[in-house]
Amino acid sequence: MSEPTITQLLREDLRGQSAYGAPQLDVPIALNTNESSYDVPETVVRSIVERVEKAAGGLNRYPDREFTELRAALADYLDRVTGVRLPVEQMWAANGSNEVLSHIVQAFGGPGRVALGFTPSYSMHPIIARGAGTTWVDGLRDRREGVHDLDVDLAVEQVREHRPNVVFVCTPNNPTGTAVSNDVVRAIYDAAPNAVVIVDEAYVEFARPGTPSALELLADHPRLIVSRTMSKAFAFAGARVGYMAASREICDAMRLVRLPYHLSSVTQATALAALDHADEMLAMVDAIKAQRDRIVEAARVAGLTPTPSDANFVLIGGLTDAHATWQALLDRGILVRDVGIAHHLRITAGTPAETDAVIAALTDLAPTHALQEEKA
Amino acid sequence: MSEPTITQLLREDLRGQSAYGAPQLDVPIALNTNESSYDVPETVVRSIVERVEKAAGGLNRYPDREFTELRAALADYLDRVTGVRLPVEQMWAANGSNEVLSHIVQAFGGPGRVALGFTPSYSMHPIIARGAGTTWVDGLRDRREGVHDLDVDLAVEQVREHRPNVVFVCTPNNPTGTAVSNDVVRAIYDAAPNAVVIVDEAYVEFARPGTPSALELLADHPRLIVSRTMSKAFAFAGARVGYMAASREICDAMRLVRLPYHLSSVTQATALAALDHADEMLAMVDAIKAQRDRIVEAARVAGLTPTPSDANFVLIGGLTDAHATWQALLDRGILVRDVGIAHHLRITAGTPAETDAVIAALTDLAPTHALQEEKA
Repeated sequence: MSEPTITQLLREDLRGQSAYGAPQLDVPIALNTNESSYDVPETVVRSIVERVEKAAGGLNRYPDREFTELRAALADYLDRVTGVRLPVEQMWAANGSNEVLSHIVQAFGGPGRVALGFTPSYSMHPIIARGAGTTWVDGLRDRREGVHDLDVDLAVEQVREHRPNVVFVCTPNNPTGTAVSNDVVRAIYDAAPNAVVIVDEAYVEFARPGTPSALELLADHPRLIVSRTMSKAFAFAGARVGYMAASREICDAMRLVRLPYHLSSVTQATALAALDHADEMLAMVDAIKAQRDRIVEAARVAGLTPTPSDANFVLIGGLTDAHATWQALLDRGILVRDVGIAHHLRITAGTPAETDAVIAALTDLAPTHALQEEKA
Repeated sequence: MSEPTITQLLREDLRGQSAYGAPQLDVPIALNTNESSYDVPETVVRSIVERVEKAAGGLNRYPDREFTELRAALADYLDRVTGVRLPVEQMWAANGSNEVLSHIVQAFGGPGRVALGFTPSYSMHPIIARGAGTTWVDGLRDRREGVHDLDVDLAVEQVREHRPNVVFVCTPNNPTGTAVSNDVVRAIYDAAPNAVVIVDEAYVEFARPGTPSALELLADHPRLIVSRTMSKAFAFAGARVGYMAASREICDAMRLVRLPYHLSSVTQATALAALDHADEMLAMVDAIKAQRDRIVEAARVAGLTPTPSDANFVLIGGLTDAHATWQALLDRGILVRDVGIAHHLRITAGTPAETDAVIAALTDLAPTHALQEEKA
């Protein structure tokens, strides 16, 4: 009997798969992962160094497993930016919101259970759900091809049909860009009496005025979870800190599935330093929104079909061949994201100079790259 | 219909469980989690601060998803301490060896699959295996009650019986303290033709002279995985860095299950700084081994039954009531670990002063806490 190959030993559903992840290419203009194009300010760097210096001597010891100071700082932060005051027991955090979401599906999903999301949406949701053995159901956002806003009646209908244990609502939605109202969240919640409902608000700080946070629903909705991240508006992707707000009972359940000491002392120190300077970390949000709106407008003028956005990116449709346009932009030193939706690309909003380059490239490419009907 | 409670929504097997983790109590002498009692040296703190300072300005960007520099530094480190030279493609790392082990069972375990370990052993192994939906089989180390060395014939017999997909061999074994030879690892490997065999060497740097590393077997054993950690001998528990060496194919498979960007830029910078000072980080290993051997000898003299140890802890048996002794030690300001083995406690070897306190307490307590037959 010959030795099996490693592939033959792999879990069946992983065989032949390729790893998730946008290409990490060294390009002049990287607008493919919805990072902030603005470096961390020097004053914040100083605070990080001070906090890490204090923690470093004690790295022989395990971190505070409960990361209580960090949870308190995150609660304070949410209070400041949303006016919703939560006790530390209603906060949880992990190495990126991906790990937060993973904790949730490990606790409430798993083999024999169902997670439902409305696609196109954040592509890690099904990966995380399946990673915990959960059956993933790809729900529709709208019956009409190319309409990306979430139809509330259709959403409720799908929830009733699939009776999920976990529901993902991404708002503002990645990669389409638009937010849903709290009425939609409420309707989905009410239709799913045996589910935890995750509202993934990774991009919420970029939403247009008047967009409420689902945090306002928490008090009356014990099965609701609002997940957020320091990676996007907070401009701290490299630190890998995601967090969530939910009932105490849900946060307690996270302790049953998280690996002990999952947040290092250095991560806790770094995040605390940045949260001490929340205003500086968020300072570029308005500037980024302005660039986003410039991209929407320029794409429209160029004859493409951008979706107005509540996030720090724009989904642009109307391309004959998305991959060809992706390559043509890369040839100009601009890396954007092919999110796997035919005729569409996603472009992160960066600095004014980056926007200038994007607009020049789109204007230049549109005549040969736009779909025929758009050109007509 | 009333709302379900959060507990009712939990995955069935988690209901009623309590979270893993030793108590984090503020005590004068903490010898319960096998940390190093020695602070990180000031020169290393300086290097950490320098590396983090360089990384901090760029924390708006995601980390290097492939953490190539860190993998290269870990390969260099293994070469220095073991003489086994591996290419970077054979290295993997994560937030603590718990996460490394979790990646492995996610890739090679899962629902319908079996993981086998030989208990008592590291209590996270079954938790991690079950967390990925894997069926856990609690193998015996020896048929005789209280004998903790791994009987190779019994191990092979159990492997043949249960046909596992993943086998855990912990050496030196936590919490019993002794190492197994590479002959035992080879026998288990040969008996499990469809398994990946994980040799968990978290404590290997503390092994007595002549104990080989399973790294020496890697070249001829493509299904073998050697996991290690920076938390123990490397004295860096707070940084949360575990790693493994295995075939390229196995390391590649980890990319299918890890959450993208799982290692933050700050974690990578911190670990690199410490690896630049490996000699200083490991400087206390011999001193800790000397304290460990002092504890073994003193416990024996006091009429208890310590297991000679290849790790930085000692498992002490012969106690009438392990919990009562745990409490009596805590009343003296000494926190040790009740590992759930009747009549036994595990004590980490720390500084000479901590050892003095442990020996004084054990000597004091033994007459009233030792099992009757030991006193006779």
